[in-house]
Amino acid sequence: MTINQLRLIVSLLMFMISNVGLSQSKIVVFQSDFGLKDGAVSAMKGVAMGVSSELKLYDLTHEIPAYNIWEASYRLMQTVPYYPKGTVFVSVVDPGVGTERKSVVLKTNTGQFIVTPDNGTLTLTAEQLGIEEIREIDEAVNRRKDSGKSYTFHGRDVYAYTAARLASGVISFNEVGKVLPKEVLSIPYQKAIIIGKTLKGNIPILDVQYGNIWTNIDAELVKKFNLKYGDLLKISIFHNDKKVYETEAPYSETFGNVPKGKPLCYLNSLLQLSFALNQDSFATLHNIQSGSDWNVEVTKLDF
Amino acid sequence: MTINQLRLIVSLLMFMISNVGLSQSKIVVFQSDFGLKDGAVSAMKGVAMGVSSELKLYDLTHEIPAYNIWEASYRLMQTVPYYPKGTVFVSVVDPGVGTERKSVVLKTNTGQFIVTPDNGTLTLTAEQLGIEEIREIDEAVNRRKDSGKSYTFHGRDVYAYTAARLASGVISFNEVGKVLPKEVLSIPYQKAIIIGKTLKGNIPILDVQYGNIWTNIDAELVKKFNLKYGDLLKISIFHNDKKVYETEAPYSETFGNVPKGKPLCYLNSLLQLSFALNQDSFATLHNIQSGSDWNVEVTKLDF
Amino acid sequence: MTINQLRLIVSLLMFMISNVGLSQSKIVVFQSDFGLKDGAVSAMKGVAMGVSSELKLYDLTHEIPAYNIWEASYRLMQTVPYYPKGTVFVSVVDPGVGTERKSVVLKTNTGQFIVTPDNGTLTLTAEQLGIEEIREIDEAVNRRKDSGKSYTFHGRDVYAYTAARLASGVISFNEVGKVLPKEVLSIPYQKAIIIGKTLKGNIPILDVQYGNIWTNIDAELVKKFNLKYGDLLKISIFHNDKKVYETEAPYSETFGNVPKGKPLCYLNSLLQLSFALNQDSFATLHNIQSGSDWNVEVTKLDF
Repeated sequence: MTINQLRLIVSLLMFMISNVGLSQSKIVVFQSDFGLKDGAVSAMKGVAMGVSSELKLYDLTHEIPAYNIWEASYRLMQTVPYYPKGTVFVSVVDPGVGTERKSVVLKTNTGQFIVTPDNGTLTLTAEQLGIEEIREIDEAVNRRKDSGKSYTFHGRDVYAYTAARLASGVISFNEVGKVLPKEVLSIPYQKAIIIGKTLKGNIPILDVQYGNIWTNIDAELVKKFNLKYGDLLKISIFHNDKKVYETEAPYSETFGNVPKGKPLCYLNSLLQLSFALNQDSFATLHNIQSGSDWNVEVTKLDF
Repeated sequence: MTINQLRLIVSLLMFMISNVGLSQSKIVVFQSDFGLKDGAVSAMKGVAMGVSSELKLYDLTHEIPAYNIWEASYRLMQTVPYYPKGTVFVSVVDPGVGTERKSVVLKTNTGQFIVTPDNGTLTLTAEQLGIEEIREIDEAVNRRKDSGKSYTFHGRDVYAYTAARLASGVISFNEVGKVLPKEVLSIPYQKAIIIGKTLKGNIPILDVQYGNIWTNIDAELVKKFNLKYGDLLKISIFHNDKKVYETEAPYSETFGNVPKGKPLCYLNSLLQLSFALNQDSFATLHNIQSGSDWNVEVTKLDF
Repeated sequence: MTINQLRLIVSLLMFMISNVGLSQSKIVVFQSDFGLKDGAVSAMKGVAMGVSSELKLYDLTHEIPAYNIWEASYRLMQTVPYYPKGTVFVSVVDPGVGTERKSVVLKTNTGQFIVTPDNGTLTLTAEQLGIEEIREIDEAVNRRKDSGKSYTFHGRDVYAYTAARLASGVISFNEVGKVLPKEVLSIPYQKAIIIGKTLKGNIPILDVQYGNIWTNIDAELVKKFNLKYGDLLKISIFHNDKKVYETEAPYSETFGNVPKGKPLCYLNSLLQLSFALNQDSFATLHNIQSGSDWNVEVTKLDF
């Protein structure tokens, strides 16, 4: 063996090692409304493993209420920013499967990818992180072999397959399909605003596990409204413009600041204004739900 | 360092790298009726990680209804074919734990392995993918150390342990235990057939999340029955040979082809004839269940 | 390229490869009362992936009943010993978030780590495996960047982040923070004892999936009480010292030894005395729950 041959081998080795290194960051995160009782989620992961067993497969949630595109959008917003650049999300909440909606891959300005039907699922992430580029999946290329006769499981045969190929480097983002205009199908919803001495907003979601009420009023607006820890607030909750509940609660830094069972107002982990009962369920006790037709008004009680 | 020493080191390096490469495809997939509320599933994974932390551990489902061997068999059929060759499944639905049933590892003709009690769990996969070889687990060798006093958690101490050793290459398939005859304990069920102008079959499972009715009538039989998209069908559902529901529905390529709430007949992701309501639950609304005692008849309505 | 340069490259390569090798055992296991319906668990995993995509992330359970610290402690005891040395557990059941409880990392005598608020969660593991060392998390260092304004999601911003850094070797155990005295906040509970001809104990937990009753009476005490398979026992169950149920059942090696629906007494997978109905739910049928106020008494019926 000559020095030149050795040089070649060492270069080859370094290339192989760098590939091993690269392969370690190939993350795919799955979301759906499939639930975990049948084999659908696992079949998607099987297809991904078939593309490359070096992928790391994780879940966002599979308990999105059936067909609830708004909640799918919300859960992505809640989660995508915490994953590293290059992570590929698959979101399959797809009541229109088989109809005209486009299958797309969006790349955010922060470098994550989302593989999904463009049916509203991208509403909040597109606003939050921005669109670097969006491409339509070319199913002539990016569809699992032998899946041509099945019309109903795009999640497995197109979305999981495309995500796995993109995350593992089998295809580049360019090879997903043609570039689309930088826009997504968006679900309209009420933005958070200050009107006079009132803070108004929407209840996009409940913190389901604990029954806390989350609003779309963020920390910046809270600051502009000049809230301070200890301030006593009047909170009114509306469904379809009809007031359904009213209470008083302090703006509090921690749950432990109010007695067990009492209401408080706080910034949640997404830094949005939220309402809770200390160690009880606000939503269940007062029958509050979430969605585009659930709104809140907050005013300060001065003495 | 001489050229020969370098040569040795480079060979050694290449061997190490190739091992790193090999280790990347070692997949174990777990199924059980344990649920996810306690530590049982996680303890099984801990045992597998103790065998080799290079394994990739995934789940099929742990929400099999308690003791429902038939459903365990169905979920394997729905999922196993989508995973690559060499994947090792562990299925623990085991009402007879501690009694006479054999603990086995089946290798399918397509190269996946299933570690399970031979209690009916293998019924459908054995039919679908064929048996390449089946071996009885030799518990004298393939049982976690220090687990001898425990009689009730074979899932952790024998099945997860054996699966991890097989998937990671600690043992070969031969070392699982002695070869058995190529047959499994099978649960009897009604096959799909055409009798005159009627298509008959069984309802093996519900698509639980959406409440769709899945039958065992596959695309080939549907083709032989000469169904075309748009054909209007009469669907009758029987429980213990008594008709419990009857409706009319079109054979449809997509859910979007019928109005919201209306019934349709379609091929599901496994290419089997199924019944659904567009965006509603057929099973809940009409009180349909699944199992060997639930059957269907389909006839064409001609005009 | 000279031999010396080659030597350097080969050393470098070996270092890189050895790191790849080391990275394969870096396991983090998550437990919480968050449930799986929202993005909280996934966001924790995203933060961990951001620290090192070579980590292997698994779950214990996220279905701990809200705020139930006792059950969090029990699930850790049930699971931690089955994972290899060096595994890092994150347990976030934290009703006191934002109050005075300490955030700690405990290293067991068997080499696993647990990252958690010290609020009782460590009660049973500390007893079971012993404390090698316990350190308080220094949040000045071990807190996700840009998370300073959020007061409520320690699970993501401190616990998952610290666990990932520890498991991936970014920090050593010493770098977690200052050493604390070898003691944890412990929840008091009744120990298992023999008093005269009666075996007394507590019902720490139910086997929720099957409805079996698990006690804290272990195999050693059972042996001391001289129980033999086939012995007929009188079992009394007390809630707050009031007898709520009484039955007779054989001490049995396997479930199959009693008819379907009949009670038996057995050693569970943790080798603790338990009560079950063969293929039915003891807890549901007889309305038995678990906790520090649920106790049992067992006596032998002699003839």
